[in-house]
Amino acid sequence: MPSSVDVELSALEVPIVQAPLSGGASTPRLTAAVAGAGGFGFLAGGYKTTEALAADIGELRELTPAPFGVNIFAPPAPEVDAAAVATYAGQLVADARRYGTSLGEARHDDDSFAAKVELVERERPAVASFTFGCPARDTVAALHRLGIDVWVTITTADEAELAAAAGADALVVQGVEAGGHRGGFTDPPPGEQLGLLVLLRKVANRVQLPLVAAGGIADGPSIAAVLAAGAAAAQLGTALMLAPEAGTSAPHRAALARPGDTALTRAFSGRTARGIVNRFMREHDRDAPVAYPDVHHLTTPIRAAARAAGDPEAVNLWAGQAHELAVAEPAAEIVRRLWLDAQASAVATAARLRPASG
Amino acid sequence: MPSSVDVELSALEVPIVQAPLSGGASTPRLTAAVAGAGGFGFLAGGYKTTEALAADIGELRELTPAPFGVNIFAPPAPEVDAAAVATYAGQLVADARRYGTSLGEARHDDDSFAAKVELVERERPAVASFTFGCPARDTVAALHRLGIDVWVTITTADEAELAAAAGADALVVQGVEAGGHRGGFTDPPPGEQLGLLVLLRKVANRVQLPLVAAGGIADGPSIAAVLAAGAAAAQLGTALMLAPEAGTSAPHRAALARPGDTALTRAFSGRTARGIVNRFMREHDRDAPVAYPDVHHLTTPIRAAARAAGDPEAVNLWAGQAHELAVAEPAAEIVRRLWLDAQASAVATAARLRPASG
Repeated sequence: MPSSVDVELSALEVPIVQAPLSGGASTPRLTAAVAGAGGFGFLAGGYKTTEALAADIGELRELTPAPFGVNIFAPPAPEVDAAAVATYAGQLVADARRYGTSLGEARHDDDSFAAKVELVERERPAVASFTFGCPARDTVAALHRLGIDVWVTITTADEAELAAAAGADALVVQGVEAGGHRGGFTDPPPGEQLGLLVLLRKVANRVQLPLVAAGGIADGPSIAAVLAAGAAAAQLGTALMLAPEAGTSAPHRAALARPGDTALTRAFSGRTARGIVNRFMREHDRDAPVAYPDVHHLTTPIRAAARAAGDPEAVNLWAGQAHELAVAEPAAEIVRRLWLDAQASAVATAARLRPASG
Repeated sequence: MPSSVDVELSALEVPIVQAPLSGGASTPRLTAAVAGAGGFGFLAGGYKTTEALAADIGELRELTPAPFGVNIFAPPAPEVDAAAVATYAGQLVADARRYGTSLGEARHDDDSFAAKVELVERERPAVASFTFGCPARDTVAALHRLGIDVWVTITTADEAELAAAAGADALVVQGVEAGGHRGGFTDPPPGEQLGLLVLLRKVANRVQLPLVAAGGIADGPSIAAVLAAGAAAAQLGTALMLAPEAGTSAPHRAALARPGDTALTRAFSGRTARGIVNRFMREHDRDAPVAYPDVHHLTTPIRAAARAAGDPEAVNLWAGQAHELAVAEPAAEIVRRLWLDAQASAVATAARLRPASG
């Protein structure tokens, strides 16, 4: 049953959520560490087999009895322009050769959506969250009957209203600052993507659900800020990627720790995502078609070979805009430190703003 | 002399700043109304003659003895690609014909930068602020000798460091959410532009100057949020454009009051700016060159004719991402209401975040 205040969020000791971090950084150890510090963690369901996700759930349950969430990718748009994908593939051949590999097969699959929903229904984590689209009302109702809360990632106020109408219990409100893929229902141009503060205020004015603020949150004052702007919790992604518990690759860690610009690009996957600017992005961004996950599969061998070679210039270096604020320390320390800083910031702000007569 | 805490900002009864709103919405009445409510207002120096700016300063001083600021555009990059401008002009001819006008002359002028700085030196407003670039150290020092504080608009942490090194007293920290032109020193692509919260945190970590947060701030919780994130004050732009004191045109007011997407575009001016999406933007965005203010002058007659005809589809409908939160009420009421809401939001947030043991 949809609740007006999400059960997991209201019960949290620390209103900090660990982002699912699909694509490598997610590990059961990271999720357990965040839960151990009083926050709430997600396992990534995306880009892995249903069996691998089941194994992660099992491993996490060995590590902690704490509640957790599982993130699932909603199915992509039904079809893409195959000719555009083929043209783009032609432009990537030289890159494949450069790293001694060949292009992947441009499959238009749905990342085993139905099987992963079934797995979640069997495993019953506290929360199932969805990215790239809103699950159908029936799917949400089925999860509710099993006691599983449903969170939906949104990037516009209209998407928030659709998710609320489908029965979502909470919304992950993703601002343009966020690293990795834009998680909304469609793939609009960069200049139309909303900043986190504006998105929070627009959504808070339109729906009554608890909001989890996501995108560019990497220190305590940012957490205090999004809570002041109406969020029930703050989600950390990039801020946790230098933690030893994260599965972040070595070239990715090195890039995150350096100051460097990020940009939005479809070059790696056919869907807009934010990463640290590198050669692959500069050379291919303009030509990449809207074709997810076809382009993702096409570039997988290139990215894997570059990663293995320790060459960051053809790796998808997903990073939020605040990556230079990320600190390499244990995840539980990050959660505790940021929460103490957020509390101090909120108290100082209130003291400064309190009316002289108050 | 540069001060570590800006004189005007620390003396404000209400830490709300009225954006300069160059291009029509700015009026002395609006600036006076904001000052009357305890905030701090700016007169726009851009897009008008030095004489017209002098007249505005005189009119404002008739209305109020309160301190105020004057905003000046820094000179643009030394040259542009004339061939690209000519090609773009060819694509705009049909639009000019449609509105019964002809294209303007694509001048590469500096908006009378030196004359406007001299005017400010004679008139001595409390603050001179700069957009599109940082004034030279000598210019800043000359203004300081006259008791004029210098604020510089920045959009990256690197620009913040340059402005601090030039002697700025405060920084206007403009997030990607902001309406109108991106005010930074260069013109990077939309996907690289920083959201306000991230920009505040990055800048606060690098420079010690007071920060005025700008971009998408249109209600009290947003103000509480940016102050929690380290800002000394919040700047309102679009949020004041429906006030009766603003010079906003009728078609612009109507567009602001409707929900509608905004996007970043160079179509109107040759420099990236945020406005409500309309036909002109959709048809010309992709072809517009980086050529400011040449393209601004080229499109001036089209925009004026469309505005006069009440047709919003070829008007530069500058708007921040939060424009649907703007309310049509007197400017002083807006300032007072938002400030009360910000105080309430900050107090509620602190109460919620206070440690149980505290």
